[in-house]
Amino acid sequence: MKTYKGYLIDLDGTMYRGTEKIEAASDFVKALVKAEVPYLFLTNNSSTTPEKVADKLNQMDIPADANQVVTSSMATAAYIQQQKPNASVYVIGEDGLKVAIEQEGLLVSESEAEYVVVGIDREINYEKLAKGCLFVRDGATFLSTNGDVAIPTERGLLPGNGSLTSVISVSTGVQPVFVGKPESIIMDYAIQKLGLKHEETIMVGDNYHTDILAGIRSGMDTLMVFTGVSTEEELLNEEIKPTYQIHSLLEWIPNIM
Amino acid sequence: MKTYKGYLIDLDGTMYRGTEKIEAASDFVKALVKAEVPYLFLTNNSSTTPEKVADKLNQMDIPADANQVVTSSMATAAYIQQQKPNASVYVIGEDGLKVAIEQEGLLVSESEAEYVVVGIDREINYEKLAKGCLFVRDGATFLSTNGDVAIPTERGLLPGNGSLTSVISVSTGVQPVFVGKPESIIMDYAIQKLGLKHEETIMVGDNYHTDILAGIRSGMDTLMVFTGVSTEEELLNEEIKPTYQIHSLLEWIPNIM
Repeated sequence: MKTYKGYLIDLDGTMYRGTEKIEAASDFVKALVKAEVPYLFLTNNSSTTPEKVADKLNQMDIPADANQVVTSSMATAAYIQQQKPNASVYVIGEDGLKVAIEQEGLLVSESEAEYVVVGIDREINYEKLAKGCLFVRDGATFLSTNGDVAIPTERGLLPGNGSLTSVISVSTGVQPVFVGKPESIIMDYAIQKLGLKHEETIMVGDNYHTDILAGIRSGMDTLMVFTGVSTEEELLNEEIKPTYQIHSLLEWIPNIM
Repeated sequence: MKTYKGYLIDLDGTMYRGTEKIEAASDFVKALVKAEVPYLFLTNNSSTTPEKVADKLNQMDIPADANQVVTSSMATAAYIQQQKPNASVYVIGEDGLKVAIEQEGLLVSESEAEYVVVGIDREINYEKLAKGCLFVRDGATFLSTNGDVAIPTERGLLPGNGSLTSVISVSTGVQPVFVGKPESIIMDYAIQKLGLKHEETIMVGDNYHTDILAGIRSGMDTLMVFTGVSTEEELLNEEIKPTYQIHSLLEWIPNIM
Protein backbone atom coordinates (compact mmCIF):
# COMPACT_ATOMS: atom_id res chain seq x y z
CA MET A 1 0.00 0.00 0.00
CA LYS A 2 1.32 3.42 -0.98
CA THR A 3 2.03 5.88 1.84
CA TYR A 4 0.78 9.43 1.38
CA LYS A 5 2.66 12.51 2.55
CA GLY A 6 -0.46 14.66 2.76
CA TYR A 7 -4.25 14.41 3.03
CA LEU A 8 -7.03 16.57 1.66
CA ILE A 9 -10.23 15.86 3.56
CA ASP A 10 -13.84 16.66 2.77
CA LEU A 11 -16.11 17.84 5.59
CA ASP A 12 -19.84 17.10 5.25
CA GLY A 13 -20.44 13.38 4.87
CA THR A 14 -16.84 12.60 5.75
CA MET A 15 -16.14 14.33 9.11
CA TYR A 16 -19.78 14.91 10.07
CA ARG A 17 -23.31 14.84 8.71
CA GLY A 18 -24.83 18.28 9.24
CA THR A 19 -24.55 18.75 13.00
CA GLU A 20 -23.97 15.04 13.73
CA LYS A 21 -20.43 13.81 14.23
CA ILE A 22 -19.16 10.78 12.28
CA GLU A 23 -17.54 8.71 15.02
CA ALA A 24 -14.47 7.49 13.13
CA ALA A 25 -13.49 11.01 12.03
CA SER A 26 -11.84 12.02 15.28
CA ASP A 27 -9.61 8.93 15.50
CA PHE A 28 -8.74 9.24 11.82
CA VAL A 29 -7.54 12.83 12.10
CA LYS A 30 -5.78 12.17 15.40
CA ALA A 31 -3.85 9.38 13.65
CA LEU A 32 -2.68 11.92 11.06
CA VAL A 33 -1.56 14.26 13.85
CA LYS A 34 0.28 11.47 15.66
CA ALA A 35 2.06 10.41 12.46
CA GLU A 36 2.85 14.08 11.69
CA VAL A 37 1.19 13.83 8.29
CA PRO A 38 -0.02 17.25 7.13
CA TYR A 39 -3.70 17.61 6.15
CA LEU A 40 -6.20 20.21 5.00
CA PHE A 41 -9.99 20.28 5.13
CA LEU A 42 -11.66 21.19 1.85
CA THR A 43 -15.17 22.61 1.58
CA ASN A 44 -17.24 23.97 -1.30
CA ASN A 45 -19.20 26.04 1.23
CA SER A 46 -18.35 29.64 0.33
CA SER A 47 -20.41 31.22 3.10
CA THR A 48 -18.28 30.16 6.03
CA THR A 49 -14.83 31.17 7.30
CA PRO A 50 -11.88 28.90 8.19
CA GLU A 51 -12.24 29.96 11.83
CA LYS A 52 -15.85 28.80 12.00
CA VAL A 53 -15.03 25.49 10.33
CA ALA A 54 -12.14 24.84 12.75
CA ASP A 55 -14.38 25.67 15.72
CA LYS A 56 -17.02 23.21 14.56
CA LEU A 57 -14.42 20.45 14.07
CA ASN A 58 -12.83 21.10 17.45
CA GLN A 59 -16.21 20.81 19.12
CA MET A 60 -16.39 17.34 17.58
CA ASP A 61 -12.96 16.49 19.01
CA ILE A 62 -11.38 16.65 15.56
CA PRO A 63 -7.99 18.42 15.62
CA ALA A 64 -8.20 21.42 13.26
CA ASP A 65 -6.68 24.86 13.07
CA ALA A 66 -8.13 27.65 10.93
CA ASN A 67 -5.08 27.54 8.68
CA GLN A 68 -5.86 23.89 7.89
CA VAL A 69 -9.17 24.84 6.26
CA VAL A 70 -9.62 25.66 2.56
CA THR A 71 -12.99 27.03 1.41
CA SER A 72 -14.07 27.56 -2.18
CA SER A 73 -14.07 31.28 -1.37
CA MET A 74 -10.39 31.24 -0.44
CA ALA A 75 -9.49 29.33 -3.59
CA THR A 76 -11.55 31.76 -5.67
CA ALA A 77 -9.88 34.80 -4.14
CA ALA A 78 -6.40 33.32 -4.60
CA TYR A 79 -7.20 32.41 -8.22
CA ILE A 80 -8.19 36.00 -9.01
CA GLN A 81 -5.22 37.48 -7.15
CA GLN A 82 -2.89 35.23 -9.18
CA GLN A 83 -4.55 36.19 -12.48
CA LYS A 84 -4.83 39.91 -11.80
CA PRO A 85 -3.41 41.27 -8.53
CA ASN A 86 -5.62 43.76 -6.66
CA ALA A 87 -8.42 43.45 -9.22
CA SER A 88 -11.85 44.93 -8.58
CA VAL A 89 -14.46 42.28 -7.84
CA TYR A 90 -18.24 42.47 -7.78
CA VAL A 91 -19.32 39.89 -5.22
CA ILE A 92 -22.66 38.12 -4.87
CA GLY A 93 -22.26 36.05 -1.72
CA GLU A 94 -22.17 35.92 2.03
CA ASP A 95 -19.55 37.01 4.55
CA GLY A 96 -17.19 34.08 4.00
CA LEU A 97 -16.74 35.08 0.37
CA LYS A 98 -16.39 38.82 0.94
CA VAL A 99 -13.85 38.31 3.75
CA ALA A 100 -11.81 35.91 1.59
CA ILE A 101 -11.76 38.34 -1.35
CA GLU A 102 -10.64 41.21 0.87
CA GLN A 103 -8.02 39.14 2.70
CA GLU A 104 -6.35 38.38 -0.64
CA GLY A 105 -5.97 42.12 -1.22
CA LEU A 106 -8.66 42.36 -3.88
CA LEU A 107 -11.10 45.25 -4.07
CA VAL A 108 -14.74 44.40 -3.37
CA SER A 109 -16.64 46.92 -5.49
CA GLU A 110 -20.22 47.78 -6.39
CA SER A 111 -19.29 50.33 -9.03
CA GLU A 112 -16.63 48.64 -11.15
CA ALA A 113 -15.76 45.02 -11.74
CA GLU A 114 -12.98 43.22 -13.57
CA TYR A 115 -14.41 40.05 -12.04
CA VAL A 116 -17.90 38.94 -11.05
CA VAL A 117 -17.92 36.22 -8.40
CA VAL A 118 -21.02 34.34 -7.32
CA GLY A 119 -21.23 32.31 -4.11
CA ILE A 120 -24.27 31.10 -2.20
CA ASP A 121 -26.22 34.15 -1.07
CA ARG A 122 -29.35 33.71 0.99
CA GLU A 123 -29.90 37.47 0.70
CA ILE A 124 -30.01 37.23 -3.10
CA ASN A 125 -32.20 39.82 -4.84
CA TYR A 126 -32.94 41.07 -8.35
CA GLU A 127 -30.64 44.07 -8.13
CA LYS A 128 -27.64 41.91 -7.22
CA LEU A 129 -28.36 39.61 -10.16
CA ALA A 130 -28.96 42.58 -12.47
CA LYS A 131 -25.61 44.12 -11.57
CA GLY A 132 -23.89 40.79 -12.05
CA CYS A 133 -25.41 40.46 -15.54
CA LEU A 134 -24.47 44.01 -16.52
CA PHE A 135 -20.85 43.58 -15.39
CA VAL A 136 -20.52 40.23 -17.18
CA ARG A 137 -22.04 41.69 -20.38
CA ASP A 138 -19.57 44.54 -19.97
CA GLY A 139 -16.70 42.07 -20.10
CA ALA A 140 -15.98 41.17 -16.47
CA THR A 141 -14.57 37.68 -15.98
CA PHE A 142 -17.27 35.45 -14.51
CA LEU A 143 -16.40 33.08 -11.65
CA SER A 144 -18.51 30.94 -9.37
CA THR A 145 -17.24 29.45 -6.11
CA ASN A 146 -18.92 26.10 -6.80
CA GLY A 147 -21.48 24.41 -8.97
CA ASP A 148 -23.48 22.50 -6.31
CA VAL A 149 -27.10 22.75 -7.41
CA ALA A 150 -28.72 21.82 -4.09
CA ILE A 151 -28.01 22.16 -0.39
CA PRO A 152 -29.30 19.48 1.99
CA THR A 153 -31.21 21.00 4.94
CA GLU A 154 -33.83 19.85 7.44
CA ARG A 155 -36.44 21.33 5.07
CA GLY A 156 -35.19 19.36 2.10
CA LEU A 157 -32.91 20.23 -0.82
CA LEU A 158 -32.70 24.01 -1.19
CA PRO A 159 -31.15 25.94 -4.11
CA GLY A 160 -27.36 25.69 -4.14
CA ASN A 161 -24.88 28.08 -5.63
CA GLY A 162 -24.82 26.35 -9.00
CA SER A 163 -28.49 27.19 -9.44
CA LEU A 164 -28.12 30.85 -8.39
CA THR A 165 -25.14 31.15 -10.74
CA SER A 166 -27.32 29.98 -13.62
CA VAL A 167 -29.34 33.21 -13.57
CA ILE A 168 -26.31 35.08 -14.86
CA SER A 169 -25.06 32.35 -17.20
CA VAL A 170 -28.51 31.81 -18.74
CA SER A 171 -29.19 35.54 -19.06
CA THR A 172 -25.82 36.52 -20.53
CA GLY A 173 -24.90 33.32 -22.35
CA VAL A 174 -21.49 33.46 -20.62
CA GLN A 175 -20.41 30.34 -18.74
CA PRO A 176 -18.55 30.92 -15.48
CA VAL A 177 -15.32 29.32 -14.35
CA PHE A 178 -16.23 27.15 -11.36
CA VAL A 179 -13.60 26.93 -8.62
CA GLY A 180 -14.82 24.36 -6.07
CA LYS A 181 -14.82 20.56 -6.24
CA PRO A 182 -14.95 18.76 -8.68
CA GLU A 183 -12.90 21.42 -10.47
CA SER A 184 -9.14 21.28 -10.15
CA ILE A 185 -8.68 24.96 -9.22
CA ILE A 186 -9.47 24.37 -5.54
CA MET A 187 -7.36 21.19 -5.58
CA ASP A 188 -4.31 22.91 -7.03
CA TYR A 189 -4.70 25.68 -4.46
CA ALA A 190 -4.83 23.18 -1.59
CA ILE A 191 -1.92 21.10 -2.87
CA GLN A 192 0.20 24.23 -3.18
CA LYS A 193 -0.79 25.24 0.36
CA LEU A 194 0.33 21.83 1.59
CA GLY A 195 3.63 22.23 -0.27
CA LEU A 196 3.40 18.74 -1.73
CA LYS A 197 2.97 17.18 -5.16
CA HIS A 198 -0.31 15.77 -6.45
CA GLU A 199 1.06 12.23 -6.51
CA GLU A 200 2.15 12.46 -2.87
CA THR A 201 -1.31 13.48 -1.67
CA ILE A 202 -4.66 11.70 -1.33
CA MET A 203 -8.16 13.13 -1.45
CA VAL A 204 -10.64 11.72 1.08
CA GLY A 205 -14.39 12.17 0.65
CA ASP A 206 -17.88 10.70 0.52
CA ASN A 207 -19.25 12.30 -2.66
CA TYR A 208 -18.15 10.73 -5.92
CA HIS A 209 -19.26 13.67 -8.06
CA THR A 210 -17.44 16.35 -6.09
CA ASP A 211 -14.68 14.96 -3.83
CA ILE A 212 -13.60 11.91 -5.77
CA LEU A 213 -13.93 13.45 -9.24
CA ALA A 214 -11.95 16.46 -8.00
CA GLY A 215 -9.13 14.15 -6.98
CA ILE A 216 -9.29 12.15 -10.20
CA ARG A 217 -9.34 15.25 -12.41
CA SER A 218 -6.37 16.79 -10.67
CA GLY A 219 -4.33 13.60 -10.89
CA MET A 220 -4.46 12.53 -7.25
CA ASP A 221 -5.22 9.21 -5.62
CA THR A 222 -8.61 9.10 -3.91
CA LEU A 223 -10.09 7.46 -0.83
CA MET A 224 -13.83 7.07 -0.87
CA VAL A 225 -15.74 6.50 2.35
CA PHE A 226 -19.41 5.43 2.30
CA THR A 227 -20.58 7.59 5.19
CA GLY A 228 -22.33 10.30 3.18
CA VAL A 229 -23.82 10.96 -0.24
CA SER A 230 -22.54 8.26 -2.59
CA THR A 231 -23.32 4.57 -2.13
CA GLU A 232 -21.39 1.47 -3.11
CA GLU A 233 -24.16 0.62 -5.56
CA GLU A 234 -24.01 3.98 -7.33
CA LEU A 235 -20.29 3.56 -7.74
CA LEU A 236 -20.84 0.45 -9.88
CA ASN A 237 -22.06 2.72 -12.67
CA GLU A 238 -18.98 4.93 -12.64
CA GLU A 239 -16.32 4.06 -15.15
CA ILE A 240 -13.43 5.59 -13.24
CA LYS A 241 -13.32 4.24 -9.69
CA PRO A 242 -11.73 5.81 -6.60
CA THR A 243 -8.27 4.42 -5.78
CA TYR A 244 -9.65 2.98 -2.53
CA GLN A 245 -13.13 2.41 -1.08
CA ILE A 246 -13.92 1.93 2.62
CA HIS A 247 -16.97 1.92 4.88
CA SER A 248 -15.34 3.65 7.85
CA LEU A 249 -12.28 5.83 8.19
CA LEU A 250 -11.16 3.48 10.97
CA GLU A 251 -10.26 0.92 8.29
CA TRP A 252 -7.72 3.33 6.86
CA ILE A 253 -5.83 4.21 10.04
CA PRO A 254 -3.28 1.35 9.69
CA ASN A 255 -2.20 2.93 6.38
CA ILE A 256 -1.30 6.24 8.00
CA MET A 257 2.36 6.55 8.88
CA MET B 1 -52.43 37.95 -51.33
CA LYS B 2 -54.36 36.01 -48.71
CA THR B 3 -56.78 37.95 -46.52
CA TYR B 4 -56.69 37.27 -42.80
CA LYS B 5 -59.76 37.22 -40.58
CA GLY B 6 -57.81 37.98 -37.43
CA TYR B 7 -54.51 39.46 -36.23
CA LEU B 8 -52.27 38.64 -33.29
CA ILE B 9 -49.93 41.55 -32.68
CA ASP B 10 -46.75 41.78 -30.65
CA LEU B 11 -46.14 44.91 -28.55
CA ASP B 12 -42.53 45.89 -27.85
CA GLY B 13 -40.63 46.41 -31.12
CA THR B 14 -43.86 46.24 -33.12
CA MET B 15 -46.25 48.85 -31.59
CA TYR B 16 -43.59 50.79 -29.64
CA ARG B 17 -39.99 50.62 -28.51
CA GLY B 18 -40.00 50.96 -24.71
CA THR B 19 -41.72 54.31 -24.17
CA GLU B 20 -41.27 55.47 -27.78
CA LYS B 21 -44.15 55.06 -30.20
CA ILE B 22 -43.58 53.38 -33.56
CA GLU B 23 -45.30 55.81 -35.93
CA ALA B 24 -46.91 53.33 -38.30
CA ALA B 25 -48.52 51.35 -35.46
CA SER B 26 -51.46 53.69 -34.94
CA ASP B 27 -52.46 53.74 -38.62
CA PHE B 28 -52.02 49.99 -38.86
CA VAL B 29 -54.35 49.22 -35.97
CA LYS B 30 -56.85 51.88 -37.06
CA ALA B 31 -57.00 50.15 -40.44
CA LEU B 32 -57.93 46.91 -38.66
CA VAL B 33 -60.65 48.74 -36.73
CA LYS B 34 -61.99 50.35 -39.89
CA ALA B 35 -62.08 47.01 -41.71
CA GLU B 36 -63.69 45.38 -38.64
CA VAL B 37 -60.95 42.77 -38.47
CA PRO B 38 -60.58 41.42 -34.91
CA TYR B 39 -57.14 41.60 -33.31
CA LEU B 40 -55.39 40.84 -30.03
CA PHE B 41 -52.16 42.14 -28.57
CA LEU B 42 -49.81 39.42 -27.29
CA THR B 43 -47.11 40.02 -24.70
CA ASN B 44 -44.72 37.74 -22.85
CA ASN B 45 -44.58 40.33 -20.06
CA SER B 46 -46.17 38.59 -17.09
CA SER B 47 -45.87 41.52 -14.70
CA THR B 48 -48.44 43.77 -16.30
CA THR B 49 -52.25 43.69 -16.55
CA PRO B 50 -54.41 44.00 -19.69
CA GLU B 51 -55.73 47.32 -18.37
CA LYS B 52 -52.25 48.82 -18.10
CA VAL B 53 -51.31 47.61 -21.57
CA ALA B 54 -54.48 49.08 -23.10
CA ASP B 55 -53.84 52.41 -21.34
CA LYS B 56 -50.32 52.58 -22.70
CA LEU B 57 -51.51 51.81 -26.24
CA ASN B 58 -54.34 54.35 -26.04
CA GLN B 59 -51.86 57.01 -24.96
CA MET B 60 -50.01 56.27 -28.19
CA ASP B 61 -53.24 56.69 -30.18
CA ILE B 62 -53.48 52.96 -30.81
CA PRO B 63 -57.03 51.63 -30.41
CA ALA B 64 -56.99 48.96 -27.69
CA ASP B 65 -59.36 47.67 -25.09
CA ALA B 66 -58.25 45.60 -22.07
CA ASN B 67 -60.07 42.57 -23.44
CA GLN B 68 -57.91 42.76 -26.57
CA VAL B 69 -54.75 42.09 -24.57
CA VAL B 70 -53.31 38.65 -23.86
CA THR B 71 -50.41 38.37 -21.42
CA SER B 72 -48.33 35.26 -20.73
CA SER B 73 -49.83 35.35 -17.23
CA MET B 74 -53.38 35.06 -18.56
CA ALA B 75 -52.41 32.18 -20.86
CA THR B 76 -50.64 30.45 -17.96
CA ALA B 77 -53.63 30.80 -15.65
CA ALA B 78 -56.04 29.54 -18.33
CA TYR B 79 -53.74 26.59 -19.08
CA ILE B 80 -53.75 25.51 -15.43
CA GLN B 81 -57.49 26.03 -15.05
CA GLN B 82 -58.06 23.82 -18.07
CA GLN B 83 -55.74 21.08 -16.77
CA LYS B 84 -56.95 21.14 -13.17
CA PRO B 85 -59.80 23.49 -12.25
CA ASN B 86 -59.34 25.47 -9.02
CA ALA B 87 -55.87 24.03 -8.43
CA SER B 88 -53.57 25.44 -5.76
CA VAL B 89 -50.69 27.42 -7.23
CA TYR B 90 -47.47 28.65 -5.67
CA VAL B 91 -46.62 31.85 -7.54
CA ILE B 92 -43.26 33.55 -7.94
CA GLY B 93 -44.07 36.73 -9.84
CA GLU B 94 -45.48 40.23 -9.77
CA ASP B 95 -49.02 41.54 -9.57
CA GLY B 96 -49.95 40.81 -13.19
CA LEU B 97 -49.36 37.11 -12.63
CA LYS B 98 -51.06 36.86 -9.25
CA VAL B 99 -54.12 38.75 -10.49
CA ALA B 100 -54.38 36.53 -13.59
CA ILE B 101 -54.14 33.35 -11.52
CA GLU B 102 -56.84 34.53 -9.13
CA GLN B 103 -59.11 35.77 -11.91
CA GLU B 104 -59.13 32.28 -13.41
CA GLY B 105 -60.46 30.96 -10.11
CA LEU B 106 -57.23 29.28 -9.06
CA LEU B 107 -55.97 29.35 -5.48
CA VAL B 108 -52.76 31.31 -4.90
CA SER B 109 -51.14 29.49 -1.99
CA GLU B 110 -47.94 29.62 0.05
CA SER B 111 -48.62 26.41 1.95
CA GLU B 112 -49.64 23.89 -0.72
CA ALA B 113 -49.04 23.72 -4.43
CA GLU B 114 -50.23 21.47 -7.21
CA TYR B 115 -48.50 23.92 -9.56
CA VAL B 116 -45.45 26.14 -9.26
CA VAL B 117 -45.52 29.11 -11.64
CA VAL B 118 -42.59 31.43 -12.20
CA GLY B 119 -42.91 34.86 -13.82
CA ILE B 120 -40.56 37.83 -13.73
CA ASP B 121 -40.24 38.94 -10.11
CA ARG B 122 -38.12 41.92 -9.26
CA GLU B 123 -38.72 41.18 -5.58
CA ILE B 124 -37.19 37.71 -5.97
CA ASN B 125 -35.46 36.32 -2.88
CA TYR B 126 -33.93 33.08 -1.65
CA GLU B 127 -36.98 31.99 0.32
CA LYS B 128 -39.24 32.28 -2.73
CA LEU B 129 -36.83 30.17 -4.78
CA ALA B 130 -36.41 27.68 -1.93
CA LYS B 131 -40.16 27.18 -1.66
CA GLY B 132 -40.43 26.78 -5.43
CA CYS B 133 -37.73 24.08 -5.37
CA LEU B 134 -39.33 22.23 -2.47
CA PHE B 135 -42.78 22.19 -4.12
CA VAL B 136 -41.34 21.02 -7.45
CA ARG B 137 -39.33 18.27 -5.74
CA ASP B 138 -42.54 17.35 -3.95
CA GLY B 139 -44.24 16.76 -7.32
CA ALA B 140 -45.90 20.07 -8.20
CA THR B 141 -46.18 20.72 -11.94
CA PHE B 142 -43.63 23.37 -12.93
CA LEU B 143 -44.67 26.18 -15.29
CA SER B 144 -42.94 29.36 -16.38
CA THR B 145 -44.75 32.26 -18.04
CA ASN B 146 -41.97 32.76 -20.57
CA GLY B 147 -38.39 31.87 -21.34
CA ASP B 148 -37.02 35.30 -22.22
CA VAL B 149 -33.52 35.40 -20.75
CA ALA B 150 -33.02 39.18 -20.84
CA ILE B 151 -35.09 42.34 -20.58
CA PRO B 152 -33.97 45.46 -22.47
CA THR B 153 -33.86 48.53 -20.18
CA GLU B 154 -32.10 51.90 -20.15
CA ARG B 155 -29.43 50.26 -17.95
CA GLY B 156 -28.83 47.45 -20.44
CA LEU B 157 -30.04 43.84 -20.61
CA LEU B 158 -31.29 42.75 -17.19
CA PRO B 159 -32.22 39.20 -16.12
CA GLY B 160 -35.42 37.98 -17.75
CA ASN B 161 -37.83 35.38 -16.49
CA GLY B 162 -36.10 32.55 -18.32
CA SER B 163 -33.00 33.14 -16.24
CA LEU B 164 -34.88 33.34 -12.92
CA THR B 165 -36.73 30.16 -13.83
CA SER B 166 -33.39 28.38 -14.31
CA VAL B 167 -32.68 28.50 -10.55
CA ILE B 168 -35.46 25.98 -10.00
CA SER B 169 -34.84 23.90 -13.13
CA VAL B 170 -31.08 23.67 -12.46
CA SER B 171 -31.56 22.91 -8.77
CA THR B 172 -34.29 20.28 -9.16
CA GLY B 173 -33.42 18.88 -12.58
CA VAL B 174 -37.07 19.38 -13.60
CA GLN B 175 -37.71 21.35 -16.78
CA PRO B 176 -40.72 23.69 -16.73
CA VAL B 177 -43.43 24.00 -19.33
CA PHE B 178 -43.01 27.47 -20.84
CA VAL B 179 -46.21 29.23 -21.86
CA GLY B 180 -45.23 32.46 -23.65
CA LYS B 181 -43.96 32.99 -27.20
CA PRO B 182 -42.38 31.07 -28.96
CA GLU B 183 -44.40 28.28 -27.33
CA SER B 184 -47.75 27.43 -28.82
CA ILE B 185 -49.68 27.47 -25.52
CA ILE B 186 -50.12 31.26 -25.57
CA MET B 187 -50.93 31.16 -29.29
CA ASP B 188 -53.63 28.54 -28.90
CA TYR B 189 -55.12 30.56 -26.04
CA ALA B 190 -55.19 33.72 -28.16
CA ILE B 191 -56.62 31.99 -31.21
CA GLN B 192 -59.37 30.48 -29.11
CA LYS B 193 -60.11 33.90 -27.61
CA LEU B 194 -60.41 35.32 -31.13
CA GLY B 195 -62.75 32.49 -32.06
CA LEU B 196 -60.92 31.83 -35.31
CA LYS B 197 -58.81 29.06 -36.79
CA HIS B 198 -55.01 29.15 -36.96
CA GLU B 199 -55.04 29.31 -40.76
CA GLU B 200 -57.35 32.34 -40.73
CA THR B 201 -55.08 34.33 -38.45
CA ILE B 202 -51.71 36.01 -38.85
CA MET B 203 -49.06 36.73 -36.23
CA VAL B 204 -47.34 40.12 -36.50
CA GLY B 205 -44.05 40.80 -34.73
CA ASP B 206 -40.46 42.05 -34.81
CA ASN B 207 -38.67 39.22 -33.02
CA TYR B 208 -37.95 36.11 -35.06
CA HIS B 209 -37.15 33.94 -32.05
CA THR B 210 -40.33 34.71 -30.12
CA ASP B 211 -43.09 36.21 -32.30
CA ILE B 212 -42.36 34.61 -35.62
CA LEU B 213 -41.34 31.21 -34.28
CA ALA B 214 -44.49 31.21 -32.15
CA GLY B 215 -46.57 31.69 -35.28
CA ILE B 216 -44.63 29.10 -37.25
CA ARG B 217 -44.81 26.49 -34.49
CA SER B 218 -48.54 26.91 -34.06
CA GLY B 219 -49.21 26.66 -37.79
CA MET B 220 -50.05 30.30 -38.51
CA ASP B 221 -48.88 32.65 -41.21
CA THR B 222 -46.48 35.32 -39.96
CA LEU B 223 -45.75 38.95 -40.77
CA MET B 224 -42.32 40.13 -39.74
CA VAL B 225 -41.61 43.85 -39.39
CA PHE B 226 -38.06 45.14 -39.03
CA THR B 227 -38.75 47.82 -36.41
CA GLY B 228 -37.41 45.98 -33.38
CA VAL B 229 -35.07 43.15 -32.42
CA SER B 230 -34.48 41.05 -35.54
CA THR B 231 -32.75 42.38 -38.64
CA GLU B 232 -33.08 41.45 -42.28
CA GLU B 233 -29.49 40.17 -42.20
CA GLU B 234 -30.12 37.86 -39.23
CA LEU B 235 -33.07 36.39 -41.03
CA LEU B 236 -30.83 35.15 -43.84
CA ASN B 237 -29.51 32.49 -41.43
CA GLU B 238 -32.94 31.16 -40.52
CA GLU B 239 -34.08 28.15 -42.46
CA ILE B 240 -37.80 28.76 -41.99
CA LYS B 241 -38.73 32.29 -43.07
CA PRO B 242 -41.72 34.37 -42.02
CA THR B 243 -44.58 34.32 -44.53
CA TYR B 244 -44.07 38.05 -45.19
CA GLN B 245 -41.36 40.60 -44.34
CA ILE B 246 -41.82 44.37 -44.27
CA HIS B 247 -39.96 47.44 -43.03
CA SER B 248 -43.00 49.36 -41.84
CA LEU B 249 -46.51 48.33 -40.92
CA LEU B 250 -47.71 51.01 -43.37
CA GLU B 251 -46.71 48.70 -46.22
CA TRP B 252 -49.22 46.14 -45.01
CA ILE B 253 -52.29 48.36 -44.71
CA PRO B 254 -53.45 47.75 -48.32
CA ASN B 255 -53.74 44.04 -47.43
CA ILE B 256 -56.17 44.68 -44.60
CA MET B 257 -59.78 44.30 -45.61
